[in-house]
Amino acid sequence: MAYDPDNIFAKILRGELPAHKVYEDDATLAFMDIMPISRGHVLVLSKAPARNILDIDAADLARVVAVVQRVARAAKEALGADGVTIQQFNEPAGGQTVFHLHFHVVPRWEGQPLRPHGAIKADPADLKRDAEQIAALLV
Amino acid sequence: MAYDPDNIFAKILRGELPAHKVYEDDATLAFMDIMPISRGHVLVLSKAPARNILDIDAADLARVVAVVQRVARAAKEALGADGVTIQQFNEPAGGQTVFHLHFHVVPRWEGQPLRPHGAIKADPADLKRDAEQIAALLV
Repeated sequence: MAYDPDNIFAKILRGELPAHKVYEDDATLAFMDIMPISRGHVLVLSKAPARNILDIDAADLARVVAVVQRVARAAKEALGADGVTIQQFNEPAGGQTVFHLHFHVVPRWEGQPLRPHGAIKADPADLKRDAEQIAALLV
Repeated sequence: MAYDPDNIFAKILRGELPAHKVYEDDATLAFMDIMPISRGHVLVLSKAPARNILDIDAADLARVVAVVQRVARAAKEALGADGVTIQQFNEPAGGQTVFHLHFHVVPRWEGQPLRPHGAIKADPADLKRDAEQIAALLV
């Protein structure tokens, strides 16, 4: 499948849409999911125009996964989580809804099930606070 | 948390327990999940003695993710899947049940929901056939 440059994550990468950013470098961008499945749910994107794991260049994938690891550690520590779930969806049958490669980094707490994906909007003030707390551990 | 060398994936890596292998190199091993959440469910492990994404060395993580990508492509093509879901669990609250770093590569088909993790044992003949079909695309 071809890459569509009008997907919403491409617009965030171009600065055409806002996001609560957690981390950015030349190859990656991490920001809060506005409909989190758990508190502290961060999306980590490659800046490469890749649709998903099936077409991304291996070097670009390595760069984004290194940031996934750093964000997982930082989010767990910043928010006092008990664990972290990583998810990455490919094609509609695989659960993908935005067609720009991204990883979900989801802090988890004992006894707290996940909310459904894309169902409940978070309070922007909560997203801003959590983004700042996670970002402070990524400097 | 410390790494426990008596976990069942460490035993598979040492050859003390069998597995339907899909791929192996000096840094990684991929084999069929015996309780798959979808047909073609493959586990991709680092050979490094890492508990999960929170403690694995970044270079070891890069090696295993490169194989995750190759297995995702091969499994989708070999089995004619419509998509692929990648999952990686960290600590019990994060969904982890075996404490050796691994990624789940789960082929998906339109309209087919996932089965629960660790619930239903597959027919070994089916695992053997699917392992061979996926492995044939990874040579």
